[in-house]
Amino acid sequence: MNSNRYSVILGNLGNTCDRFLPTGYKEAFPKKEMIRQAAAIPGIAGIELVGTWDITESNVAEIKSALQEYRLVCVSIIPDLFSQKRWGLGSFSAKDPTIRQQALDETRSVCRIAREMECPLINLWLGQDGYDYPLTADYRGQRRILMEGLHIVASEFPDLKFALEYKPKEPRNHSFQARAADTLLMAQETGLDNVGVCIDVGHAFVGGENVSESAVILQHYGQKLFHMHFNDNFRSWDDDMIVGSVHLVEYVELLFWLQETGYTGWYSMDQYPYREDGARAVAESVAFLCEIEKRLTPQRCEQIRQLIATGDATQSTRWMRELIFKS
Amino acid sequence: MNSNRYSVILGNLGNTCDRFLPTGYKEAFPKKEMIRQAAAIPGIAGIELVGTWDITESNVAEIKSALQEYRLVCVSIIPDLFSQKRWGLGSFSAKDPTIRQQALDETRSVCRIAREMECPLINLWLGQDGYDYPLTADYRGQRRILMEGLHIVASEFPDLKFALEYKPKEPRNHSFQARAADTLLMAQETGLDNVGVCIDVGHAFVGGENVSESAVILQHYGQKLFHMHFNDNFRSWDDDMIVGSVHLVEYVELLFWLQETGYTGWYSMDQYPYREDGARAVAESVAFLCEIEKRLTPQRCEQIRQLIATGDATQSTRWMRELIFKS
Amino acid sequence: MNSNRYSVILGNLGNTCDRFLPTGYKEAFPKKEMIRQAAAIPGIAGIELVGTWDITESNVAEIKSALQEYRLVCVSIIPDLFSQKRWGLGSFSAKDPTIRQQALDETRSVCRIAREMECPLINLWLGQDGYDYPLTADYRGQRRILMEGLHIVASEFPDLKFALEYKPKEPRNHSFQARAADTLLMAQETGLDNVGVCIDVGHAFVGGENVSESAVILQHYGQKLFHMHFNDNFRSWDDDMIVGSVHLVEYVELLFWLQETGYTGWYSMDQYPYREDGARAVAESVAFLCEIEKRLTPQRCEQIRQLIATGDATQSTRWMRELIFKS
Amino acid sequence: MNSNRYSVILGNLGNTCDRFLPTGYKEAFPKKEMIRQAAAIPGIAGIELVGTWDITESNVAEIKSALQEYRLVCVSIIPDLFSQKRWGLGSFSAKDPTIRQQALDETRSVCRIAREMECPLINLWLGQDGYDYPLTADYRGQRRILMEGLHIVASEFPDLKFALEYKPKEPRNHSFQARAADTLLMAQETGLDNVGVCIDVGHAFVGGENVSESAVILQHYGQKLFHMHFNDNFRSWDDDMIVGSVHLVEYVELLFWLQETGYTGWYSMDQYPYREDGARAVAESVAFLCEIEKRLTPQRCEQIRQLIATGDATQSTRWMRELIFKS
Repeated sequence: MNSNRYSVILGNLGNTCDRFLPTGYKEAFPKKEMIRQAAAIPGIAGIELVGTWDITESNVAEIKSALQEYRLVCVSIIPDLFSQKRWGLGSFSAKDPTIRQQALDETRSVCRIAREMECPLINLWLGQDGYDYPLTADYRGQRRILMEGLHIVASEFPDLKFALEYKPKEPRNHSFQARAADTLLMAQETGLDNVGVCIDVGHAFVGGENVSESAVILQHYGQKLFHMHFNDNFRSWDDDMIVGSVHLVEYVELLFWLQETGYTGWYSMDQYPYREDGARAVAESVAFLCEIEKRLTPQRCEQIRQLIATGDATQSTRWMRELIFKS
Repeated sequence: MNSNRYSVILGNLGNTCDRFLPTGYKEAFPKKEMIRQAAAIPGIAGIELVGTWDITESNVAEIKSALQEYRLVCVSIIPDLFSQKRWGLGSFSAKDPTIRQQALDETRSVCRIAREMECPLINLWLGQDGYDYPLTADYRGQRRILMEGLHIVASEFPDLKFALEYKPKEPRNHSFQARAADTLLMAQETGLDNVGVCIDVGHAFVGGENVSESAVILQHYGQKLFHMHFNDNFRSWDDDMIVGSVHLVEYVELLFWLQETGYTGWYSMDQYPYREDGARAVAESVAFLCEIEKRLTPQRCEQIRQLIATGDATQSTRWMRELIFKS
Repeated sequence: MNSNRYSVILGNLGNTCDRFLPTGYKEAFPKKEMIRQAAAIPGIAGIELVGTWDITESNVAEIKSALQEYRLVCVSIIPDLFSQKRWGLGSFSAKDPTIRQQALDETRSVCRIAREMECPLINLWLGQDGYDYPLTADYRGQRRILMEGLHIVASEFPDLKFALEYKPKEPRNHSFQARAADTLLMAQETGLDNVGVCIDVGHAFVGGENVSESAVILQHYGQKLFHMHFNDNFRSWDDDMIVGSVHLVEYVELLFWLQETGYTGWYSMDQYPYREDGARAVAESVAFLCEIEKRLTPQRCEQIRQLIATGDATQSTRWMRELIFKS
Repeated sequence: MNSNRYSVILGNLGNTCDRFLPTGYKEAFPKKEMIRQAAAIPGIAGIELVGTWDITESNVAEIKSALQEYRLVCVSIIPDLFSQKRWGLGSFSAKDPTIRQQALDETRSVCRIAREMECPLINLWLGQDGYDYPLTADYRGQRRILMEGLHIVASEFPDLKFALEYKPKEPRNHSFQARAADTLLMAQETGLDNVGVCIDVGHAFVGGENVSESAVILQHYGQKLFHMHFNDNFRSWDDDMIVGSVHLVEYVELLFWLQETGYTGWYSMDQYPYREDGARAVAESVAFLCEIEKRLTPQRCEQIRQLIATGDATQSTRWMRELIFKS
């Protein structure tokens, strides 16, 4: 019996490309088939959709009914503010006011869709909002204009939550929303309760963060951790791998702290299985997290609290070793 | 004619050791001789002192008179909360309340000294406040207790400014004050106007930050950039090298933004010339920064503003190339 | 008057995409127009072509005549062993022998084209030859099989030189030819004089290498530096930026050592100007390198030799500062 | 019943300092007590000694008898070529020929001691042999001179094995023996069978290496992996932590490949338990490695071979998950 709720971004089950092979390493499936596959993954109860890719104002009814058919909840929608040529120099923070207006409108459209889908959360990944070269970005002005755009949209849809997903780089060499604390500052600056942060575990690794500490900081300053994306990598890049394929200790500690700080959102898979079968890769991630969840019994959580209070590195390491090899 | 004010941490001119050679690579000079050497470096007008190492309640008069003799200003004092065995598990955030009390008392002592020295700023580098291993730190509780300690001391000395110097790691594997934005959040949390942040450029490099953007963020949220430490490194570690020995473009952009955001504090050298002559190494750093300062004329600053407004990477790169090779 | 010979990979002038925007940030130009643009860049005398993309057995005559029309030399050809679905799990090192056979055949085809083009060098970037996850690669067996493939092709075309271009990662999470020394070991293992290494400066940065030292090592063990690709990045990823937009000192030292160790190959630009005008971005790179080349007079090279012999960090840093700001 | 042989560097049990606290975080024990503690660690059968620190020509008999008393084997001796002021600018590669002579003599002395101790291996960690700043090192000449020094000493003691321990940086900003493949090239260049390489797992992590692949490469080119040092870190620095406190998958794969490639040397602990009890921290490391060794049964090794042959990321990840949570 899980109490954590697991979901997946639908695109994880689709084709995946990179800059060297833009047509992708695999074949694409029809949308409906991807939904069916997602529903078949043990533990998956929710879906994240990307605007334009997965859902538009014209196919809402169809997608809604497909999700219902498979008893899946729409957990969040991610506006497509990153995969169109017009966003190449930014969306909310673009220097061109026409583009900024389009970004607002695109987000509003997704917000209306979310309401129809009874989806409570907009996940904003502003991947194109950043800069590539020295002496090309107005760190002050563009940051302010970005925040103002967030304020406008989030004010208009007070019934929705907006989670800002940070990432140090890619597709821009530097993102404006690069790390947990920077992004929290911007969320706070809006002065709105419905603006918070999404941690993508892989992005946090790339940013050199201790992801548990990032989660604690976001929760400490007003329960601002709104959403979680899970994947794994080798720390130098957003490899978007199967959860647990590289890291272990970090996930154990993270799941403890998510629980400890009262995180009640979804545990959503966000991978890029370039050369793997998407459904199997996602299933493996969920299975890994479930194994950890299962072990974080009230008794073990109390042990962790005591380890933390004591702070003895050898004891903590021994506890983890026994968790791995003896439980 | 410089308008930036340059200073140096006195210890830069002393002996330097590492974990393999704890007795140091060089010979130590008497304190007075180090002050004389500092004063002889072209451009240096101020000194930073470390509590205990350089200054105690008992030698204040002596040091004050030595600085006056050489027409040096005491720019900041750095309490020694990192180089004594008792701080090994933290100072302000130590789990042991006795140690925390000692940290408060030590800082208060330095604050009283600062008043006597007419030194307006305490630079707090809490190097031992962090953690080494997973499952050993209370990210939430220790962070709060650290903040409360800062609040206590900074409230008692409202005439002094407190600059929190962040650093991702070393001597702990993870610092609680690790990056610009995390540290700003803690400064804000004190609710005190006299608590801000110190950027050590090398620490920012190690943290993967664009140091110009960090400076802008700190200034944007209430002019919280209180102090600057300068040195250089290869980005993976706090090598504490001569300024400009590795980076160039970053310093040009940084000096522009410091001016642009109204930074009026000192430009202080903070190096570890392990195997170099200290005075010559510091002199080289100051000379490098002066060359950049000289080139940041009002006309060129206006050009930078236009480059930033335009955001054309090729134009910005060309401008920088011409600054380097044609000016 | 340059004595270095500068060239460019033709694709630098085309459209560029990434995994989020596979259709690209710009518009594509016709091949002939790209050649015209390349020829118009001051200093460019040579072109690198990618097999399949730019040149096939069927358009050799056409491309050859186009290059002649613009007085451009074909410097190298890069077989396309990375941008087709069939190479997704490797080319020369694929576990599937059919794919390995295809990789050999594709390379042979490019070798025949090279002979027709009077192009002396095949640049082999085996980007797909690597692995993504722990416990999935046969480090020993696949490495051997890769080497054997190289031996087969390079033996068949002893009149051509084969430069192995290493890169730590991307598109695979780990490449078999990841760093300079690893790749040199494999080149040596073939036992063939016509197999050497290509340094892509950006790849070396990402690998944490001091690129000058890498060049020296390759030359020290049998003059094995066969080719050079130039671009810049922020060290954590292959950003493929304009040369000199981030680094400076490294390029000065590198150009010195290339000359010092008798490198006589081309200085070829290899960028990805995602959002920039390709021709202007390449032109800026060449201009930057020419500025350095111009300053590396025999007199200054002799000064560098003395600095190196002395090894005084302050003197070396001062020399560099004066080169930048006083020459 | 272990078949791997575990040892520890004696200094792991002593005091530890860093550049901020040169007198150390702990108390020092007498040498004899440290030997007693080492012997009491379950699984430890061998000891590594550091020249000068632990053993000199004058205390050989005493140390030999102490080791015998505790049934400990002397596994290797590490000449102290790093913790004395005279080595500050290098030992074997120093520009000063007097220092180079002293480095040869110091190493010879340790070799003679090794013979008396019946210790078969000299572990050469040339930590000071490198450089700090651009334009200060003769990458070509100093590399050659270093190799020649190795050749001299290793020729004189053909009955001893010499393992070169590489490390990317620290105490120098760049080491000449920085990575596995670079160091292998130098070992090969000596032309001597008794010169090989030592992998320190933490150093390999810092170098961005896949340590399993490094081991395979060293073994592939003539069984050149002579020695192994174990510790853990967060990948950005040589934190010298308890084995398994951060990584897991990497150690499983490494232990498989060590066995697979016929590594028969010691598994030696090399930690810096700055703030931990040394004996307990080392014991925890050995316990961790023993847990893995125990699970690498012939049957599981055969499974791994099949996973590698198949190369399916999801299967491999699942296998690892089941190893962790189900065995």
